[in-house]
Amino acid sequence: MGKKQSNQVKEITPMEVDFPQWYTDVISKTEMVDYSPVKGFMVIRPYGYAIWELIQKAYDKRFKETGHENMYFPLLIPESLLKKEAEHVEGFAPEVAWVTHGGDKELGERLAVRPTSETIICSMYSKWLNSYRQLPFLYNQWCNVVRWEKTTRPFLRTSEFLWQEGHTLHETAEEAQAETMQMLGIYREIAETCLAMPMVVGQKSEKEKFAGADATYTMEALMHDGQALQSGTSHNLGQHFTKAFDITYLDRNNEQSYPYHTSWGVSTRLIGGIIMVHGDDNGLVLPPMIAPIQVVVIPVAQHKEGVLDKAWEIGKILEKEYRVKVDDSDGYSPGWKFNQWEMKGVPIRLEIGPRDIENGQCVLARRDTGEKIQVSLEDVLKAVGDLLKEIQSNLYDKALKMREEKTSTAENTDEFKKNLKENPGFIKAMWCGERSCEDEIKEDTGASIRCIPFDDEQEVLYEGKCVCCGKPAKKMAYFARAY
Amino acid sequence: MGKKQSNQVKEITPMEVDFPQWYTDVISKTEMVDYSPVKGFMVIRPYGYAIWELIQKAYDKRFKETGHENMYFPLLIPESLLKKEAEHVEGFAPEVAWVTHGGDKELGERLAVRPTSETIICSMYSKWLNSYRQLPFLYNQWCNVVRWEKTTRPFLRTSEFLWQEGHTLHETAEEAQAETMQMLGIYREIAETCLAMPMVVGQKSEKEKFAGADATYTMEALMHDGQALQSGTSHNLGQHFTKAFDITYLDRNNEQSYPYHTSWGVSTRLIGGIIMVHGDDNGLVLPPMIAPIQVVVIPVAQHKEGVLDKAWEIGKILEKEYRVKVDDSDGYSPGWKFNQWEMKGVPIRLEIGPRDIENGQCVLARRDTGEKIQVSLEDVLKAVGDLLKEIQSNLYDKALKMREEKTSTAENTDEFKKNLKENPGFIKAMWCGERSCEDEIKEDTGASIRCIPFDDEQEVLYEGKCVCCGKPAKKMAYFARAY
Repeated sequence: MGKKQSNQVKEITPMEVDFPQWYTDVISKTEMVDYSPVKGFMVIRPYGYAIWELIQKAYDKRFKETGHENMYFPLLIPESLLKKEAEHVEGFAPEVAWVTHGGDKELGERLAVRPTSETIICSMYSKWLNSYRQLPFLYNQWCNVVRWEKTTRPFLRTSEFLWQEGHTLHETAEEAQAETMQMLGIYREIAETCLAMPMVVGQKSEKEKFAGADATYTMEALMHDGQALQSGTSHNLGQHFTKAFDITYLDRNNEQSYPYHTSWGVSTRLIGGIIMVHGDDNGLVLPPMIAPIQVVVIPVAQHKEGVLDKAWEIGKILEKEYRVKVDDSDGYSPGWKFNQWEMKGVPIRLEIGPRDIENGQCVLARRDTGEKIQVSLEDVLKAVGDLLKEIQSNLYDKALKMREEKTSTAENTDEFKKNLKENPGFIKAMWCGERSCEDEIKEDTGASIRCIPFDDEQEVLYEGKCVCCGKPAKKMAYFARAY
Repeated sequence: MGKKQSNQVKEITPMEVDFPQWYTDVISKTEMVDYSPVKGFMVIRPYGYAIWELIQKAYDKRFKETGHENMYFPLLIPESLLKKEAEHVEGFAPEVAWVTHGGDKELGERLAVRPTSETIICSMYSKWLNSYRQLPFLYNQWCNVVRWEKTTRPFLRTSEFLWQEGHTLHETAEEAQAETMQMLGIYREIAETCLAMPMVVGQKSEKEKFAGADATYTMEALMHDGQALQSGTSHNLGQHFTKAFDITYLDRNNEQSYPYHTSWGVSTRLIGGIIMVHGDDNGLVLPPMIAPIQVVVIPVAQHKEGVLDKAWEIGKILEKEYRVKVDDSDGYSPGWKFNQWEMKGVPIRLEIGPRDIENGQCVLARRDTGEKIQVSLEDVLKAVGDLLKEIQSNLYDKALKMREEKTSTAENTDEFKKNLKENPGFIKAMWCGERSCEDEIKEDTGASIRCIPFDDEQEVLYEGKCVCCGKPAKKMAYFARAY
């Protein structure tokens, strides 16, 4: 720790100066993540992993409440299986890491380190499914996947990441669509309530959809630098895979049918989103619901009699309901500790010194606003609880306001470019639906269609003329540069 | 499910007839696990995975209570890193799956799919550790590992399995030894209290220890067929890896020192142990603490008015404290359901029919003894709680009794062989400590030294003469054939 004192605190590059460097500073100085000896692979350190555990727990609970069960499928997938669904293999082949040798022997067939598990899961579903009475299949797995990426950034795009992938089968197309939408809804619900990240949701364009899907739905968040982050996707896979893998069952009419299929995933990428939505020039700002430490108790003048005892006493009271750390470490000033835990994004800092004890009170300092309030020691448990709730909701509101400020509309490509330059963020614009216009915008501006909102959030802008070609357009889409 | 009715229930090969076939029948008919398209790799199905989740939760809680934090390290390890510790690479090289291509490109250096993570973790520890003030490092990871195995059996030995691996660093040899023993103690505690599996603990011989360890400690359970299962190991790695990876820190005397190192792991193998310790000819028998379903409520004459309502009412009451399933499925007789859930090892079956309702009672049937008791509906929550505790402790007692019955002593190799033939199990025998005797016994009988018990469980048998060579022996060891 000695070494850290000199180089860790308050040496974060300001966002405005260099946003990518700010991000790199934050993730490394807070010890969330580190680079590994293998290029493009990250080590998730305890402070980062603890956030992932809390995210997992929140999602897993909702998956189970909606009837899904967890399983585990093999890491390695035979090349022949991966190739069974044509669009799918085309989409993933360039990113596959291949195992060619087991021990000293060359394998007869190459094995892909799973980039996603549709193919191996379908091969098992085809074995398990016989009758409509078994449907729906509602399964999920938490695992690691590997996608060989050229340029990587911890949490956001790495050659290995942790995620969950749900894989379901249904009797009807309608049920599969309902499942696809239900899971998108759960993704959004947890992202907004626990991660305090407001989401724009909608459908992906044909160009941007998952390799092998009928339709892909997405939730997209906006980062401080005005770039979007695809934060979770839910795919209606129709019968692409069930036909390719010959998954059939005896239906209610006693005939062999192919079931309808969905898959959906969120990953450790969400942690990158939390950092870039809530963070500031002092470091991380963590929403209380996923903060590994919700309250840090810092004794002031801790050598004075009774201070440490009182700090620990308060810690014990709070830890019955919250995740608490008492920082009684020696050799660091309270000021240094304040900075340290501010950088780590702990929602509440509780300060307690001799004068506070005399007055039967302590100070709560909010990470999100910097505000300090005095509370009576008798009320501390309730005060902390109330404040955590307030911080949680304030972070959501702040993020929503930020997104709204960075969301504009554009009538034509000139305006589109101007907006992207002057106020980068989401641009709402009409789109004719042609791939050529989508490609042209991407090439000219770097912005892609993030999603086409659902009907209840659709708007007709500028008399419905496509932002690119000016022809009649039926849908408004969210465009942005993206991670 | 239609298809399953005909082939699933009551077609388990009796243990006495063919124990390996019994095991295969149980794991497949209960849908815990399935074979995958890649030889040696298993699919863990929901009923098996739910057990793993409960085991994980129990261990993870204890790891955290003892100050350990979780992290995540990369799946792939460069060949050069794996080769840095000589004994280690020699031990693992024959079992490594190698990634040679990423996308279309051949890699400059082969990457090992982790068989265990000492090497990559040490490479990071060497970067992170500077000062004694940072010690101890107390970290763990939950992940998948791959070891290319020639002969495999689901849960017991598979080319991929799920496990946790703890990796700690300490200032002194004493602290590392204390950690090694603490973790062995936690392994045993959870195995005995939650999994109801009595363990023999002790040290591995030089021959059987982990590749690169100073000392390996193990817990070993005895299966119904008299074979031992190594169920968890804790290694004192000394300074082998910290020297090989040049992990140094400034110690209390302001000098550069190498820390002391431990690692420890338990895996999905434990599930195989649960099956083979507690199971019987009717299928699984699950200890309540790790049973995904602790109570199954089965309505009798469910078409009669009020029966289903009452079954659900009881289910709701019980599910506040226990894991409960109400099996109201149509088209199956209660008798068929009884068999089904008996096979799945559910600790308590609760039967409720019209006459029971009239009498304000229900029937609880124990999976472990077959005993049935009537309880008043008013007392059902407490009765179920008491009974689950009793079943948990009865299963442990039964398993201990079984092990004791299958544990013998042998004075010489003739007796050793006779015991193994007539009553296969643990054989306690004196051992001179020579590798030649250990090898000879292994070759002659297939039995290996499972562990050398600690001093408090040591005995002097047959005047301390080695079971093999007859020379003076200092230690008694547990021998057995093993999975």
